Amino acid sequence: MSKFIRNAWYVAAWSTEIDDDLRRFTILGDHIVMYRKSDGGVVALEDRCPHRLLPLSKGKRVGDNVQCGYHGLTFDCSGACVRVPGQTNLPKSAYVDAFPIEERHGIVWIWMGDPARADTSKVFDMPEFTDPGWKVHHGDALHLKSNYLNVAENLVDPAHVSFVHPTTLGNAASENVPVHVQTEGEAILAWRWIRDAEPIGFFKGFGGFTGNVDRWHYYYLYTPCTAIIDFGSAPTGDAIAEEDRNKGVRIFALHFITPVTETHTIDRWMHIRNTAIDDPEAEVTMDKMFRVAFQEDKEILEAVQEEENRPAKRRPIRIAIDKGPLVYRKRINDLIELERTEDLASDPSPAFVYHD
Amino acid sequence: MSKFIRNAWYVAAWSTEIDDDLRRFTILGDHIVMYRKSDGGVVALEDRCPHRLLPLSKGKRVGDNVQCGYHGLTFDCSGACVRVPGQTNLPKSAYVDAFPIEERHGIVWIWMGDPARADTSKVFDMPEFTDPGWKVHHGDALHLKSNYLNVAENLVDPAHVSFVHPTTLGNAASENVPVHVQTEGEAILAWRWIRDAEPIGFFKGFGGFTGNVDRWHYYYLYTPCTAIIDFGSAPTGDAIAEEDRNKGVRIFALHFITPVTETHTIDRWMHIRNTAIDDPEAEVTMDKMFRVAFQEDKEILEAVQEEENRPAKRRPIRIAIDKGPLVYRKRINDLIELERTEDLASDPSPAFVYHD
Amino acid sequence: MSKFIRNAWYVAAWSTEIDDDLRRFTILGDHIVMYRKSDGGVVALEDRCPHRLLPLSKGKRVGDNVQCGYHGLTFDCSGACVRVPGQTNLPKSAYVDAFPIEERHGIVWIWMGDPARADTSKVFDMPEFTDPGWKVHHGDALHLKSNYLNVAENLVDPAHVSFVHPTTLGNAASENVPVHVQTEGEAILAWRWIRDAEPIGFFKGFGGFTGNVDRWHYYYLYTPCTAIIDFGSAPTGDAIAEEDRNKGVRIFALHFITPVTETHTIDRWMHIRNTAIDDPEAEVTMDKMFRVAFQEDKEILEAVQEEENRPAKRRPIRIAIDKGPLVYRKRINDLIELERTEDLASDPSPAFVYHD
Repeated sequence: MSKFIRNAWYVAAWSTEIDDDLRRFTILGDHIVMYRKSDGGVVALEDRCPHRLLPLSKGKRVGDNVQCGYHGLTFDCSGACVRVPGQTNLPKSAYVDAFPIEERHGIVWIWMGDPARADTSKVFDMPEFTDPGWKVHHGDALHLKSNYLNVAENLVDPAHVSFVHPTTLGNAASENVPVHVQTEGEAILAWRWIRDAEPIGFFKGFGGFTGNVDRWHYYYLYTPCTAIIDFGSAPTGDAIAEEDRNKGVRIFALHFITPVTETHTIDRWMHIRNTAIDDPEAEVTMDKMFRVAFQEDKEILEAVQEEENRPAKRRPIRIAIDKGPLVYRKRINDLIELERTEDLASDPSPAFVYHD
Repeated sequence: MSKFIRNAWYVAAWSTEIDDDLRRFTILGDHIVMYRKSDGGVVALEDRCPHRLLPLSKGKRVGDNVQCGYHGLTFDCSGACVRVPGQTNLPKSAYVDAFPIEERHGIVWIWMGDPARADTSKVFDMPEFTDPGWKVHHGDALHLKSNYLNVAENLVDPAHVSFVHPTTLGNAASENVPVHVQTEGEAILAWRWIRDAEPIGFFKGFGGFTGNVDRWHYYYLYTPCTAIIDFGSAPTGDAIAEEDRNKGVRIFALHFITPVTETHTIDRWMHIRNTAIDDPEAEVTMDKMFRVAFQEDKEILEAVQEEENRPAKRRPIRIAIDKGPLVYRKRINDLIELERTEDLASDPSPAFVYHD
Repeated sequence: MSKFIRNAWYVAAWSTEIDDDLRRFTILGDHIVMYRKSDGGVVALEDRCPHRLLPLSKGKRVGDNVQCGYHGLTFDCSGACVRVPGQTNLPKSAYVDAFPIEERHGIVWIWMGDPARADTSKVFDMPEFTDPGWKVHHGDALHLKSNYLNVAENLVDPAHVSFVHPTTLGNAASENVPVHVQTEGEAILAWRWIRDAEPIGFFKGFGGFTGNVDRWHYYYLYTPCTAIIDFGSAPTGDAIAEEDRNKGVRIFALHFITPVTETHTIDRWMHIRNTAIDDPEAEVTMDKMFRVAFQEDKEILEAVQEEENRPAKRRPIRIAIDKGPLVYRKRINDLIELERTEDLASDPSPAFVYHD
């Protein structure tokens, strides 16, 4: 049984990762070759020639087409075979899968499921990407030797920042503050306010706070793999309301989680902020702190994965702060099960046949 | 089925390997975190938080307790959970296993089985550890990519020294001398005397012999994993009797075998000697020769393990010198089978249930 | 089921790879120890002592015999045990397999199957090895992380050179020239002529052609693992006939394929040529070009193997140029099946027994 939802948009790459050259990417365990056509559009094809299985990324571009490096079979951008050297007829089964792509805001999204269901209106978006009152900054791609569920659930878990990120995103003031969890359509939201406390390291290095602050963390996790963390602070004296977060220093940390294989995940991270919009130095400071924090996550999540690979003596325990992760895992499991059922319904050669 | 006897004392570490820091050790395939309390006592806990499985060794000390590095769950020296941040109740299943420890003569012993059966009077000891007529010298920890049974049986096999250690512990004079094997309680003893022969390399470099010697090797292997090799020499002219070995140059080479996993073993080795007690130079000479010899063992035992991992075309043959190893392997198998039967008897959810 | 034909001659080594020392070679997944006796003859024995499984190659020579490095068991060149230290009787089951060897033209051949069927008249040979009109040059041993069938079928596939070796052995002129395939006894032959075309890179660097040439490629693949590629060129104006290839610049590229394991293969390659016989500089030039080309093959074949190790979504397609490879794979499968059937017939303990 697949461990991934296929009918969903995943981030395949930053736009800057793809150019004219043939490049291999691995997503949901599948190898994909990606490149830009002469008109700049991104092509994504199954990275395996149907003849002798050589990755097409080992071949070369011939115009907008791809020629296999072993015997010269050539495929167009739709995956159809347009040439078999040494013969004139083209076998019907000579094709590779082509994957729908949507490029937006410097991000390349890919649809790994049924192409007929790829609806670009469902690609994640938010108005702050293009609002001049906000500054968009692309970060980096963090590779983790961990299953994507571990990576994603960490992004709907505000409680860990007190212990994993004590110098940047959390501090002791929040250790015992309960977390609220609710669902908002496709998003799971876990949030809490820490009122009248010392600023966290991040807002000591950035934001210019001198006294205590009210601090918020809103973790939105969109199924399957997009996490938006809305966090910020305002002077405690301002006593801002929950809905007035734009009045404080507010940052959206965006995480696009790409399952590479069952034990390898890429977290492409970036941020959008409402202050220091024209301050590149502040940007560098923020970037550094994010890197410190995400390196801490990586160490934790890879160690957890190593333990999960070992036999378990007993069931893990569940505690109050697990609500967000548990809702998330249930949603994923239900969707995988749904896809499995749909596949069975549409499968022309069912695995189970009843005989009288 | 387990490949290890659990109800036994194993050497976990030299005392010098453990301090205030949290350190991971792997014993019988289990990960253990060890550290010293403020009173100097050694604590050994299961190295896995029962919540999200992070190794506790990735967390930090809070007094004598350990705080998990992911969400702050805290465990005391008995393994009981004493804090779950964000909630006041402590789930009953929130605990980690704690392992009985006995520290003696600079050696830390651990009991990996039922704590109720951990009897410290059964920890291996010998009077020479504290007898002023003897000098105790701790050697090193040799890592071998080999199953512990291969490592241990090599330590009840005097015949191999003629071929594996021709420059240090054996020489051609002993090649055809038969080996005697007998059991003495928990020990299997394999021994032989080589009378009136050239000294081995070890006693050329140490002991000051000029002519031929009578040489003995007594290999005591205590189930499961402690080996004491009593070897020495005396001038042939002295014609010492078997029970008078203290009259010669006598050395006990001690080997404490720790099964790390099924294919990784640590041999912590040391020696106790009755000569050159205040001669550090002689100690360095001996240490060097031991290192040469044990490196030779390592090469042999790792090559044997590699072959054992491959499919066998036919059964290995058995020869006369195998008696000690065969008795040893039978004892281990019987004890593992006994533990398995005991587990079945005490298991509240038996695997096999008879229905009418 | 074995994936290899055992009753066949395989190349074990170049003659220069074997001397007095004990050396391990791995062939058809089996470890073999090889060395030269005092009379220069090559001995090949199973590289595993039947006692504790130590590779004999870890032991030492005692005259023409081999002494195990663990307990001194000693084996003669026929594999019979001639000494067990510490006892006088020699167990009947104390032996290792010995393999028939035939050394010829600097090449050591081994027979991995039933020794009674090893017929040295079946070892591959060709008159050019000793004909003074030809120059024999040994190349190198190319290691490939790929199954031998992939390596061998590439050597009965002239079509790939246009795409894999565009700067050395092929060029665009041949892309669409059909390949003829026929069988000639134990050989499968795939061939084509490219008439009146620019010389390939190889014959630009070597051969001194100024204008267009007629070029031929004859790929002979002898079951299971010997490939002879007869290729060459002559000025188009000469209009040489197919049977007059000796009138052109003619080269035999010999490839001896040794299956090491199912995913590791050695291709020992050499050539025999009819020109530049006393021109060491030309030899260096040719060698360099062969190295470029075979490195290209290696990259392709290892990438193909990696893909074959992954689950397949659908059956690979077959195209016109696959005829040679398909005939080859069928021959191999039939021979493996034949050996399996013979084994069943001669097996004293059959796996299947009928009960009434």
